[in-house]
Amino acid sequence: MVQAQNSQDSAYLNTVASVTIAPIGLGEELSTYVAQAIKVIRDSGLSNETNAMSTVIEGDLSEVMQIVEKATRALAEQGYRTEVSLKLDIRQGKRSQIHQKVELIDKILQ
Amino acid sequence: MVQAQNSQDSAYLNTVASVTIAPIGLGEELSTYVAQAIKVIRDSGLSNETNAMSTVIEGDLSEVMQIVEKATRALAEQGYRTEVSLKLDIRQGKRSQIHQKVELIDKILQ
Amino acid sequence: MVQAQNSQDSAYLNTVASVTIAPIGLGEELSTYVAQAIKVIRDSGLSNETNAMSTVIEGDLSEVMQIVEKATRALAEQGYRTEVSLKLDIRQGKRSQIHQKVELIDKILQ
Amino acid sequence: MVQAQNSQDSAYLNTVASVTIAPIGLGEELSTYVAQAIKVIRDSGLSNETNAMSTVIEGDLSEVMQIVEKATRALAEQGYRTEVSLKLDIRQGKRSQIHQKVELIDKILQ
Repeated sequence: MVQAQNSQDSAYLNTVASVTIAPIGLGEELSTYVAQAIKVIRDSGLSNETNAMSTVIEGDLSEVMQIVEKATRALAEQGYRTEVSLKLDIRQGKRSQIHQKVELIDKILQ
Repeated sequence: MVQAQNSQDSAYLNTVASVTIAPIGLGEELSTYVAQAIKVIRDSGLSNETNAMSTVIEGDLSEVMQIVEKATRALAEQGYRTEVSLKLDIRQGKRSQIHQKVELIDKILQ
Repeated sequence: MVQAQNSQDSAYLNTVASVTIAPIGLGEELSTYVAQAIKVIRDSGLSNETNAMSTVIEGDLSEVMQIVEKATRALAEQGYRTEVSLKLDIRQGKRSQIHQKVELIDKILQ
Repeated sequence: MVQAQNSQDSAYLNTVASVTIAPIGLGEELSTYVAQAIKVIRDSGLSNETNAMSTVIEGDLSEVMQIVEKATRALAEQGYRTEVSLKLDIRQGKRSQIHQKVELIDKILQ
């Protein structure tokens, strides 16, 4: 199961993440708050893409966890009750999954 | 909080969903199985869009729940242990949120 | 992969679900609203257990999907923007997983 | 919205988390692998409780994120494709929510 790695990326755990960060208690219209968290992700340099329900990010596990925490703090440290939903798909030895996963599904179904 | 509705859509609960459906126990490469569930969603007629971690769907709550169950059965009825992750954002009186939510975030951040 | 089933439960897809249902836009204290949705689940007759983050339910896939939709409607039909997070673990031929899954982990770790 | 804090816990962001960590590609019976991740959480010293679908943890946001990453690495660093599902509920100034949230629901519904 363990894939061959050359020495310089032995610690790299490629991670595709889907994350949603939103405050509770600020009414029904949340876009200006949600945007503050997404801005942190966009400024991170990691590959990312926002859809209607979440932002997808790709990077090393540690980088992804750090940027999710930083984006969460952008809201939580203002004192808002903050809800986070995070899913990770971690595959050692993979890269550029953020687009390849969708292309593969499209290819199968065409 | 209740928004005005005209009579013919009083029962319509607009729902943006994010769903991931995958089998367990069939190895690491799951695209051909995942595609079977996504095909059910694409054939449903509901507005939908697949990203690297999930498929986003928009429709009435009942329609969305039915299509998620049907797509799940496409795998589970073959006898596979099947994992489903579903998030719903339900807003009475809204429409076409699948694209408008992202456009609003982009507008705020530009 | 398909497990032997006797005829009368061939359609039964045993499902352990974890569900969280909450309104958005009603302030930070949500317990009285969350409780309305949990009440629907407790009144359903399905095996269930509430923890700090979700309610776990076990039953046939169709029953679980119906009760999740009914519990969601308890909030959404009042006009509240409603957020649902649902995870399903579906295994044909299994029963009583709601307690056995935890007991098995405890046994391995003791 | 920001709650008064005395100086020594101004940085403490109380977090109730629900986490599921599992490998993909190792067959249908995953308990021995799931237990390896749960062991890391139980050894962490943070308040925690395992249910049929996830493990609930409570602590400061940074501690929770660190322990989730460490528990994830217990599987991912063995080379397994690893799936993580994490939800966070962050409320500055709160403590001991892991039991109080359920007790409050039970009190409302009794």
